[in-house]
Amino acid sequence: MKKGILFIISGPSGVGKGTVAKALLEGSEGSMVFSVSATTRAPRPGEEHGREYFFLSDEEFNAMIEAGEFLEYMNVFGRNHYGTPRKYVEEQIAMGHDVLLDIDVNGAMKVKENCPEAVAVMLAPPTMKELRRRLETRGTEEQPVIERRLAEAKSELSRMGEYDYVVVNDDLELAIEQCRRIVETSKLTPGYCADFVNELIEEDF
Amino acid sequence: MKKGILFIISGPSGVGKGTVAKALLEGSEGSMVFSVSATTRAPRPGEEHGREYFFLSDEEFNAMIEAGEFLEYMNVFGRNHYGTPRKYVEEQIAMGHDVLLDIDVNGAMKVKENCPEAVAVMLAPPTMKELRRRLETRGTEEQPVIERRLAEAKSELSRMGEYDYVVVNDDLELAIEQCRRIVETSKLTPGYCADFVNELIEEDF
Repeated sequence: MKKGILFIISGPSGVGKGTVAKALLEGSEGSMVFSVSATTRAPRPGEEHGREYFFLSDEEFNAMIEAGEFLEYMNVFGRNHYGTPRKYVEEQIAMGHDVLLDIDVNGAMKVKENCPEAVAVMLAPPTMKELRRRLETRGTEEQPVIERRLAEAKSELSRMGEYDYVVVNDDLELAIEQCRRIVETSKLTPGYCADFVNELIEEDF
Repeated sequence: MKKGILFIISGPSGVGKGTVAKALLEGSEGSMVFSVSATTRAPRPGEEHGREYFFLSDEEFNAMIEAGEFLEYMNVFGRNHYGTPRKYVEEQIAMGHDVLLDIDVNGAMKVKENCPEAVAVMLAPPTMKELRRRLETRGTEEQPVIERRLAEAKSELSRMGEYDYVVVNDDLELAIEQCRRIVETSKLTPGYCADFVNELIEEDF
């Protein structure tokens, strides 16, 4: 059985990471799973440990940091902490599942550092004006926050070169299809074919 | 207009490079062209300079070597020489065409050295026994030559790690489709999207 890949969808706030990630997962017919994060916030009604999140105490979370068990984490004093446990990702990959991680640019780059074989996609807006329109339409942020998000978006987009791929989220269906193809072709790289080729080289002929 | 890519199809003798290359080109609707090689052999009836080959004298060929105008060349004393002129490839890529190069493993690695942004696919047989069957079926080589080709195939396959992708030529249609997707996703890498993203970063919002 071929192992899976860690597929990172990242990009500026408002670009549509969540929508693309959800569609990818739904279209994967079970071959792809979401990365389950760890958090110190309390579970909400209906949330299950190991499904929505791994719910941890501050002590457990800090112990995992010290043991190097996070691919990335956010540990802001006085707030709830969030992190991506390495073990869950590695187990799923070993089982042949692709693991999807929907994460901001700083988080994505930390994951790439800790897991260089991860495939990272920068989701980009077609134009900055369209990004503004999306942020304003979703109506979850006040105007000053939107202005800050747009300024941040530029600095995030300028880190494009640290990504493996850039996908423009203009036509949603096309963006999803391009992500699917990136997942597929990532499994045609030598690292993923090594076992097969080594068997060929060992084969009597 | 987006520039094209240099797409290298390589692999052991008998694996089906020519068949895959021809199908890719025919299915490309003009977006992909074959790399035109230079040679010192005489043109055959119907062959045209700049179409089948660039037909050169020994002196012209050697002058191009000295000027560094080949991406790779074979210059065996006493035989006709063959080479891949850099200029033709670069012109086609600048015009937005993908350029297809069907070449052996040594040639492919020289091209990658001289043109690191080229995308190189190692076409692999499903099994060594199947590679033997293909070499024997095409009937163009004597048995001792076939044995040598099979031994060479193993040493060529062991260089897999120097390639960008490995495509198994078992189901021909699947192999062709995988090559197409590699060409597509290669244009989603940061190097190919730099102009677009730089425009975004410059855009007023």
